[in-house]
Amino acid sequence: MNHFNFHDLEECLNKHIPANDLGEVKRLLFGRSDDHAIELHSETLQLAEKYNFDARGYAFTAEEEEFRKPRIVRIAAVQNSIVKPTTETVAVQRDALHEKISKIIQAAAASNVNILCLQEAWTMPFAFCTREKLPWINFAEDPEHGPTTTFLRKLAHRYKMVIISPILERDTDHGDQLWNTAVVISDSGNYMGKHRKNHIPRVGAFNEASYYFEGNTGHPVFETRYGRIAVNICYGRHHPQNWMMFGLNGAEIVFNPSATTAGISDPIWLIEARNAAVANNYFTVAINRVGTECFKNEFTTGNGKAARHEIGPFYGSSYVSAPDGTRTPCLSRDRDGLLIAEVDLNLCRQLKDYWTFRMTQRLAEYGAGLTRAAQVDYIPQIIKEKEKPTS
Amino acid sequence: MNHFNFHDLEECLNKHIPANDLGEVKRLLFGRSDDHAIELHSETLQLAEKYNFDARGYAFTAEEEEFRKPRIVRIAAVQNSIVKPTTETVAVQRDALHEKISKIIQAAAASNVNILCLQEAWTMPFAFCTREKLPWINFAEDPEHGPTTTFLRKLAHRYKMVIISPILERDTDHGDQLWNTAVVISDSGNYMGKHRKNHIPRVGAFNEASYYFEGNTGHPVFETRYGRIAVNICYGRHHPQNWMMFGLNGAEIVFNPSATTAGISDPIWLIEARNAAVANNYFTVAINRVGTECFKNEFTTGNGKAARHEIGPFYGSSYVSAPDGTRTPCLSRDRDGLLIAEVDLNLCRQLKDYWTFRMTQRLAEYGAGLTRAAQVDYIPQIIKEKEKPTS
Repeated sequence: MNHFNFHDLEECLNKHIPANDLGEVKRLLFGRSDDHAIELHSETLQLAEKYNFDARGYAFTAEEEEFRKPRIVRIAAVQNSIVKPTTETVAVQRDALHEKISKIIQAAAASNVNILCLQEAWTMPFAFCTREKLPWINFAEDPEHGPTTTFLRKLAHRYKMVIISPILERDTDHGDQLWNTAVVISDSGNYMGKHRKNHIPRVGAFNEASYYFEGNTGHPVFETRYGRIAVNICYGRHHPQNWMMFGLNGAEIVFNPSATTAGISDPIWLIEARNAAVANNYFTVAINRVGTECFKNEFTTGNGKAARHEIGPFYGSSYVSAPDGTRTPCLSRDRDGLLIAEVDLNLCRQLKDYWTFRMTQRLAEYGAGLTRAAQVDYIPQIIKEKEKPTS
Repeated sequence: MNHFNFHDLEECLNKHIPANDLGEVKRLLFGRSDDHAIELHSETLQLAEKYNFDARGYAFTAEEEEFRKPRIVRIAAVQNSIVKPTTETVAVQRDALHEKISKIIQAAAASNVNILCLQEAWTMPFAFCTREKLPWINFAEDPEHGPTTTFLRKLAHRYKMVIISPILERDTDHGDQLWNTAVVISDSGNYMGKHRKNHIPRVGAFNEASYYFEGNTGHPVFETRYGRIAVNICYGRHHPQNWMMFGLNGAEIVFNPSATTAGISDPIWLIEARNAAVANNYFTVAINRVGTECFKNEFTTGNGKAARHEIGPFYGSSYVSAPDGTRTPCLSRDRDGLLIAEVDLNLCRQLKDYWTFRMTQRLAEYGAGLTRAAQVDYIPQIIKEKEKPTS
């Protein structure tokens, strides 16, 4: 058994752990004994079958309150492989992905999804491993007026769905720079704004810093009709302070569209977004693409191994975590999928009141501490043994 | 099956998952397919059998380097129940714990442990749930000259072992305040210094803020003969910025002595210390006591439930995480235990070089960001929809 043919962790546990232990195993591993699966609309299931993707739904509940009604929202993550060979033209590759995603969004709409997030750089192969600029940079678009935003605005308007669209951005107003950017489109089909990836990897095959720099958009929270959302793109999930700033700005759901491969990150995939949900009292949605992507020219990955043509497998395993530390099962490791979570956003404040992390986080002191630690002549607080050893 | 009689998660997985899937299940859940169990010295095992505690050992390795020799260190976590009824005198209770722990430390020494950490407030029951000051405050000691430090200095000197001793502190020089404090004793038997718990819970039965305040000792790292260590006491594990500051000060191992109970925290127990190890490129050691503790007078826990006499069960499950995201199996949920991990501290810098989190963490910007967010008139970065809805 290796990670290339292991399809689904939860499926394996469900199959082999005896019924009278399974609940407790799940509670310890995933925070709750029961998956709280919800029934999806038949049209969702039909589209999933027809277009060969998984569709799964789970619920998170909150306590009833006297002064606030439940704030039930359906959020969704989409994971998918690319469609066309990377040797096709950029337009052919992109349009095929538009077509695939339109079916998945239609399936999400049929089950009343309110907010949906696509995977990182979803209109293209994750070609940054090649360090070749062409043709990949031609996938870059204007975030407000480019073809992908134009395409998704129609769907957002049609389905009254907030859509988060992570793309490669071309900023024509500022030196034609490229950025790794998430566009947020409102449920009325309007461009709300964008956020640029805050932390850029320099790891193995992930040479993205050859294309775009650390983002300059801060930590925006988008106040949508359905709740306050933010986007922590990919490698930013390794940085707890990044998650924290989105929380300080009021996020109730933070999406983490990613592209990451087996062998590099999957042992930590299940803990990072979930830990962030607990620490910041919000929902998190971890999204990763699936499949292996092949390129015409070989490339190396800075690890002494032979040049190759493939990156992957991207292992999917998208999941949703709640502020109480529970999480849904993952989507599979190798198939396209639509994950729907019905959440009550009241849970965020309930957990804030319960754990009182905001009250106890000593923010001013950490602001000063990080500022000091950032100085080139910072002297770490190190205590050495002072006395002579006893004889 | 409920969490009161579920003994051991890993044992359950080992028993039921088929051999050809078990490695992959463990890799996804714990970061590695193999536990890398190490053989402990026969004296360790004999003492464990005689005094009724578990003794387990696991190894973490690192790559060989040209310019640094391996830095192999054996670190240990101790989890235990109290010994005497809480109605005994303070001295009787404390001395019985000293006696129990002396056997476990002896067992650790027999397997060449270099650094050992005891559980939070290890000399006493976790009586803060009662909100009664007496007699519990009499467990408080002078961190440098009190009976527990005096007792442990002898063992530290005898076994050439760094010992971390989390106790209730009485600070007679500053208004007789109480603190929740970890004392660090060097391998030569000297008092190196102390660290006071940085974040104090106000959750359920954990009324500790009635006894002691947020610590004023910063984020010290103790440069011991065996490596640079720090102590993040209990509730501080919920605060990523706390873990981060220990890392910024150079910690290679951060111990997290805790006292936490089933039903309140155990779904997040397995992710917090492990996430911190990954994010900060150091080893973490999560330690929790075991057993249920009974008190003469009933107390309530702020949850509308009937008054009771018991707190618990504390669910043990102590474990060690490495900077590469792997972790050891846990100690059991209900038995005294000694967990030994052989680590190569070179792994910390190797992971720093691999992930480059320090280089990419944008420290100055977060220092400024947290400082701004701490202001009473901070305006969060919220983006609202500007345009009118499309028709």
